[in-house]
Amino acid sequence: MKFFTKLDACIKKNNSILCVGLDPDPALMPPNADILSFNKAIIDATADMVCAYKPNLAFYEAEGQRGWNILKQSINYIPKYIPVIADAKRGDIGNTSKAYARAIFEDLGADAITVNPYLGFDSIEPFTNGYPDKGVFILCRTSNKGAADFQSLSVTISGIEMPLYQAVAHKAKTWNSLNNIGLVVGATYPAEMARLRHAHPGVPFLVPGVGTQGGDIKQVLEAGQSASDHGIIINSSRQILYASRGMDFAKAAAHAAEALRQEINLYRLVS
Amino acid sequence: MKFFTKLDACIKKNNSILCVGLDPDPALMPPNADILSFNKAIIDATADMVCAYKPNLAFYEAEGQRGWNILKQSINYIPKYIPVIADAKRGDIGNTSKAYARAIFEDLGADAITVNPYLGFDSIEPFTNGYPDKGVFILCRTSNKGAADFQSLSVTISGIEMPLYQAVAHKAKTWNSLNNIGLVVGATYPAEMARLRHAHPGVPFLVPGVGTQGGDIKQVLEAGQSASDHGIIINSSRQILYASRGMDFAKAAAHAAEALRQEINLYRLVS
Repeated sequence: MKFFTKLDACIKKNNSILCVGLDPDPALMPPNADILSFNKAIIDATADMVCAYKPNLAFYEAEGQRGWNILKQSINYIPKYIPVIADAKRGDIGNTSKAYARAIFEDLGADAITVNPYLGFDSIEPFTNGYPDKGVFILCRTSNKGAADFQSLSVTISGIEMPLYQAVAHKAKTWNSLNNIGLVVGATYPAEMARLRHAHPGVPFLVPGVGTQGGDIKQVLEAGQSASDHGIIINSSRQILYASRGMDFAKAAAHAAEALRQEINLYRLVS
Repeated sequence: MKFFTKLDACIKKNNSILCVGLDPDPALMPPNADILSFNKAIIDATADMVCAYKPNLAFYEAEGQRGWNILKQSINYIPKYIPVIADAKRGDIGNTSKAYARAIFEDLGADAITVNPYLGFDSIEPFTNGYPDKGVFILCRTSNKGAADFQSLSVTISGIEMPLYQAVAHKAKTWNSLNNIGLVVGATYPAEMARLRHAHPGVPFLVPGVGTQGGDIKQVLEAGQSASDHGIIINSSRQILYASRGMDFAKAAAHAAEALRQEINLYRLVS
């Protein structure tokens, strides 16, 4: 099944465009919790409220050699109808990107990946064209403060002046012959998101940066929605995972996820 | 010890600016060779001819859960005076980059890392300022064909028009208060390398793209050398690792590395 078809089905089933970031940080988790049990409890508590899970690979690599296995077991534990987006932000020359694609799509079994566009199309093609049924979210306008360092610089593409992040969106459109590409657009820059949506009515947005990073749900939905179910999915990690550091962390995560889903749905154009 | 001090010492000891890329690809290795034994044989055969080793993490991730451990054991096997550059091309928002830095510098024990600049300074700071004794090579002008998609776009920084890769070099200079930053500049673009060297006489270059990718040694040295020992280091992976697919692969790798070191040294300004 194509990634965006699977995502649509989960959005409908759970009436949710909330993606939960599975970013286990021992410094924020309940004391002495082990990561796999923590992830399983979060998944059990939130599986009927999400459209996807998004584990960021950094938090598993930080665990050393156990990390990959914890990640693989966590992905394996997620109900099969819920898509998994590996937040890896990879990008390398062709034969190396192929190795990353094999690792993330075949070994881990993720449904989609985030990639970095700086190396250009031949670094992204092994993911998009190499795996037509998988999804690929290209970093476009990221949610962090430093995003402006390069992404806001003005460039000229096809005779039109635009910021670099718009150029990335523009190129991504030309690379999307298999309809498996989306963009990462941070919640913290709603004005930029609105301009991207205006220029690209159909492209799916994966939106990090609400909650801890400060993005506003109403602003994000107004800026980024489209006519499509999967036009925008909103990720939250810390706000849900660490709603409590006590033994009630899973229950607190469920409450936080449900509150966020409801807040998002207030502003959603449901098809 | 600071990374570039360690690199200088190894350059002097081995009279070499050749870095060997430890990128084990089972499709190219001798049939039935296991990766750790392969790496150990390559290290034994080349340790007195290199200034550094550069494992690309993709090839270890492609091995799944065994991969991290193979990489860690390979790094641990490298003689302690030889610096190890983890070719990871990472870059994420601050708290996530911190997790990557911990993984690569603390768990793996690498001496340096490659990072992607697209997310800006706050994605790089956890590596540079978080670990002052480690080295950080920022992707600037990569060796692949797609590099031009974004890296060649013209931008304006401080009132001066320049290609994006020059803007990355320009910003990197302002971020280098701890003298632990270098740039990745592909051998396949000697004209761009020469312009970078002209604009930034002191910055160290890590140069992939000779051998299989087609970069020319003489052109690279003429374009990229500086007055400093560590002004330029040249990476080769496939040309050395896969000089033979037979049982004599290690001997063939030693011959290939020695030939490449000698060719490089023909054009080197030795201090």
